[in-house]
Amino acid sequence: MSTNRLHQQIQFILEIDKLKSIMRRSYLLNQERHENSAEHSWHLAVMAILLHEYVNEQISLPHVLKMVLVHDLVEIDAGDTYCYDEDANSDKTERELQAADRLFAMLPEDQGKELRSLWEEFEERSTPEAKFANALDRMMPMMHNYYTRGKSWKENNVTSDSVLERNSLMQDGSEKLWEFTQSLIEDALKKGYLAPSNKGGNQDEQIS
Amino acid sequence: MSTNRLHQQIQFILEIDKLKSIMRRSYLLNQERHENSAEHSWHLAVMAILLHEYVNEQISLPHVLKMVLVHDLVEIDAGDTYCYDEDANSDKTERELQAADRLFAMLPEDQGKELRSLWEEFEERSTPEAKFANALDRMMPMMHNYYTRGKSWKENNVTSDSVLERNSLMQDGSEKLWEFTQSLIEDALKKGYLAPSNKGGNQDEQIS
Repeated sequence: MSTNRLHQQIQFILEIDKLKSIMRRSYLLNQERHENSAEHSWHLAVMAILLHEYVNEQISLPHVLKMVLVHDLVEIDAGDTYCYDEDANSDKTERELQAADRLFAMLPEDQGKELRSLWEEFEERSTPEAKFANALDRMMPMMHNYYTRGKSWKENNVTSDSVLERNSLMQDGSEKLWEFTQSLIEDALKKGYLAPSNKGGNQDEQIS
Repeated sequence: MSTNRLHQQIQFILEIDKLKSIMRRSYLLNQERHENSAEHSWHLAVMAILLHEYVNEQISLPHVLKMVLVHDLVEIDAGDTYCYDEDANSDKTERELQAADRLFAMLPEDQGKELRSLWEEFEERSTPEAKFANALDRMMPMMHNYYTRGKSWKENNVTSDSVLERNSLMQDGSEKLWEFTQSLIEDALKKGYLAPSNKGGNQDEQIS
């Protein structure tokens, strides 16, 4: 019984090695390659340790750490879904639910439930911890984009209205970090790292 | 003052992106490339969440999580030092101390002290948390090697005596996980994934 428990845990630990081969759209700051979801999860966890003083509401840091460490595991089956890709996002929930069913069932029942619940909490963004974890998950790609002169934004024809729409949710987790991120976005627009909205008022600016 | 604090934190978060380009000797389980130290740190953190029930003494899991997340940061300057490379290990301490001096000084003083102290604790292996974190850090490469049929052991001419000598320290953190790891090592020897000792009694077995 106990040996079987350890066996299940080991099989899961081996399985999640695959997250190191799930590639995101963002580039490393040195631009040598895209970032993978395992190292991204690590980066978010260190960010949480360093930036949790800027959270809006009181949180449990250990709970945030666990959440960011497991939030992308479903991508092992479902792949990374680029946040600005509307088509890919239409069946994201279904794909990720199927992935969760398979992956978390590999673990002993208590741990499968714990990890699944952390993932669901992250996706639902209703607790202070989930709001903060989501804020970090949105902030990091802004930083990668800004400091690579908008490399991934440009490649994917992302405009400022999409960026603002997606990332304004950051303020639910941290007003302060959203304020910082907005300043990056504004500066990115000024410097041409990010294209202005192609709907309405900013169009002239884009053409000029 | 507060803006300067955030600025320091952001600069550090950008700096540690470099850990994603520090390559270890171990391979991913799919063998497509070597593992980097950032994704390795993530993997250890998830292992800690799943395997902390096997620790010898009571520990604080959040403390272990923080420790494994930052334990390899000094490699950004010092590089990954392969544990079976005696020459590289002769000046490892000095190189890593210099790295720690530079890196942790980038942070606000309180956070620089906290991260440095976590790193020192990991290196000293004196607390129950550090012993457990070190056990995980030793266990994972055994798993990567065993499940890639000893790929990295073979490439680096590692023999069973070195593996046993280095990894028996695991038992200070977890008798149970050391027992499991020993069974992998024994089976690796039987299957020829790992060469027997080239000193003394096992030599005949190696030749046969």
